Amino acid sequence: VGQWFEYGVRVQPHHTDYAGIVWHGTYIQWMEAARVECLREVGVAFDDLVRLGYDLPVVDLAVRYHQPLRLGATAVVKTRMLAMQGVRLNWDYEIVALAPDSHLCLTGTVTLVTIDRAKHKIVRRIPPDLQDVFDKIGVYFQASI
Amino acid sequence: VGQWFEYGVRVQPHHTDYAGIVWHGTYIQWMEAARVECLREVGVAFDDLVRLGYDLPVVDLAVRYHQPLRLGATAVVKTRMLAMQGVRLNWDYEIVALAPDSHLCLTGTVTLVTIDRAKHKIVRRIPPDLQDVFDKIGVYFQASI
Amino acid sequence: VGQWFEYGVRVQPHHTDYAGIVWHGTYIQWMEAARVECLREVGVAFDDLVRLGYDLPVVDLAVRYHQPLRLGATAVVKTRMLAMQGVRLNWDYEIVALAPDSHLCLTGTVTLVTIDRAKHKIVRRIPPDLQDVFDKIGVYFQASI
Amino acid sequence: VGQWFEYGVRVQPHHTDYAGIVWHGTYIQWMEAARVECLREVGVAFDDLVRLGYDLPVVDLAVRYHQPLRLGATAVVKTRMLAMQGVRLNWDYEIVALAPDSHLCLTGTVTLVTIDRAKHKIVRRIPPDLQDVFDKIGVYFQASI
Repeated sequence: VGQWFEYGVRVQPHHTDYAGIVWHGTYIQWMEAARVECLREVGVAFDDLVRLGYDLPVVDLAVRYHQPLRLGATAVVKTRMLAMQGVRLNWDYEIVALAPDSHLCLTGTVTLVTIDRAKHKIVRRIPPDLQDVFDKIGVYFQASI
Repeated sequence: VGQWFEYGVRVQPHHTDYAGIVWHGTYIQWMEAARVECLREVGVAFDDLVRLGYDLPVVDLAVRYHQPLRLGATAVVKTRMLAMQGVRLNWDYEIVALAPDSHLCLTGTVTLVTIDRAKHKIVRRIPPDLQDVFDKIGVYFQASI
Repeated sequence: VGQWFEYGVRVQPHHTDYAGIVWHGTYIQWMEAARVECLREVGVAFDDLVRLGYDLPVVDLAVRYHQPLRLGATAVVKTRMLAMQGVRLNWDYEIVALAPDSHLCLTGTVTLVTIDRAKHKIVRRIPPDLQDVFDKIGVYFQASI
Repeated sequence: VGQWFEYGVRVQPHHTDYAGIVWHGTYIQWMEAARVECLREVGVAFDDLVRLGYDLPVVDLAVRYHQPLRLGATAVVKTRMLAMQGVRLNWDYEIVALAPDSHLCLTGTVTLVTIDRAKHKIVRRIPPDLQDVFDKIGVYFQASI
C-alpha cells in the first residue's frame, strides 16, 4: 500500500457543535479538500477535470469516528488512492490529531466514479485525456507501492 | 410596508457551535431558504428561474445579531421584499425565537440583482419572461402595502 | 423490521455544489435532523438529553449514493432505529426523491453510542433517566416490528 | 489605518453552489478563520480565551459582494482590527482573488463584543487577563498605524 498524502487542518469555531467538538459532518469537507489537494500534487487540477467535462462524484462513504477534536486543535488528514477496481476509485483516510495532543480521530474510505457531465453517465471506456489523468495518479501512488 | 412571509426553523446540532448556540453564519442559510420559499409562495420556483437562464445573487448583506438561539429552539424567519431600486431587489428580515422563549434574534437586509447566467451580466432591460416573475412578486407584496 | 419515520426536505441553493446537485456532505445534515425529529416524535427532546448530561455521538457512518438530487427538488429522509447491539444504537436510512421525479437517492446506516458528557465516557450501565429514554424509543419502534 | 493580516484560501467543491461559484455564506467561514488566525498571530489563542470564560460573538456583519470566485480559484482574506469603540471590536475585510485572475471579491465589516460566558453578559469592565489580550491586539495593529 502506497504512501499517504497529508493535508493539515485547524479546528475553527464553525467546525464545532454544541458539544465543543468538531461536528461529525465537518470531516467530510476536510476529506474532500485533502483529496482535491492530493490530485493537485499529482498534477491533476480538479477544476480542469470538470472543465474537460468529467466529474468524480462520491458513490460510497464509510467513516469510523475514534476520538473527537476540540476547538483550536490541529490535525492531519491522511489520504491515499488504492488500486482501481473497474470504474471505482477507492481512497483510504486517516485523520490524526497533532496538538494539543496526538490521537487517531477518524478512519474511513471514499469511493468515486468518473462520470461524463454531459451524458450523466459513468465513463467505462477511458478516453485519452482522462487516461492521462489516471496515469498521473498511478505514477504518484505506485512510486511507493 | 408589506406583510411578512414566515418560514419556520428548528435548531439542529449541526446549526450550533462550541458555545451551544446557533453559529452566526447558519442564519444566512435560513435567510436564503425563507427567500426561496417566499418566491415559491408568490408563484416563482427559483429553479425555474435558473433554468430560464437567470440568477439572483446576493450583492449586499447586513445582519445585526440581537440574542442567540440554543439547540432545540424553534424560530420564525420573517422576510418581505421592498420596492425595487433600479436593478436592486431589497429584502428585509427578522428572525424571532418562538420556543422555549420568545425574543428577537436577528434583523437584517439582503440585496439581490438579476443576472443573465450566459452573459454573466446584470439584467437592466427586463425581458417579458422575467417581467412576469417581477409582476408576481409585486402583486404579492403590494397586496398589503 | 420496524416502520420508517419520515422527514421531508427541499433542496435549497446552499445545499448544492458546482455540479448543480446536492453536495454529498449535505445529506449528513438531513440524516441528523431526521434522527432528532424522530426522537422528538418518540417523546425524547434531544436538547433535554444533552441537558441531562448525555450525548449521542455518531461513531460509525456508511452511506451509498444512488442518484443525485437537483436544486428545488423535494425528498423524504426515511429513518428507523434497529434493535440495540450492546451500547450501539443503529439507525437505518433511505433518502427518496419525491419531485420533480421519484428515485432512490441514498441508503445508509449511522451508529450512535450514549456518552456521559461530564466523564467523556460511554454509558454502559443505563441509569433510570436514560432507561426511560430508551424505553420510549423501544415502544415506538417495536410497535411495528 | 493599520496593516492587513492575510489568510489564504482555495475554493473546494463544498464551498460552491449550483452556479459554479462560491456560495455567498461560505465567505463568513473564511472571515471567521482569518480573524481567529490573526488573533493567533497576535499571540491570542481563541480557544484559550474561551477556556478563560470569555467569548467574542459577532453582533454586526455587513458584506458587499463584488465579483464571484470559481471552483479551484485561490484568494486571500485580508483583515485588520480598527480602534475599539467602547465594547465593540470592529474588523475590516477584503477578499481578493489571486488566481486564475486577480480581482476584488468582497469587502465587509464584522463587529464583536466580549462576553462573560458564565454570566451571558457583555464585559464592560475589562479584567486583567482580558486587558492582556486587548493589549496584545493593540500592539500588533498599532505597530503600523
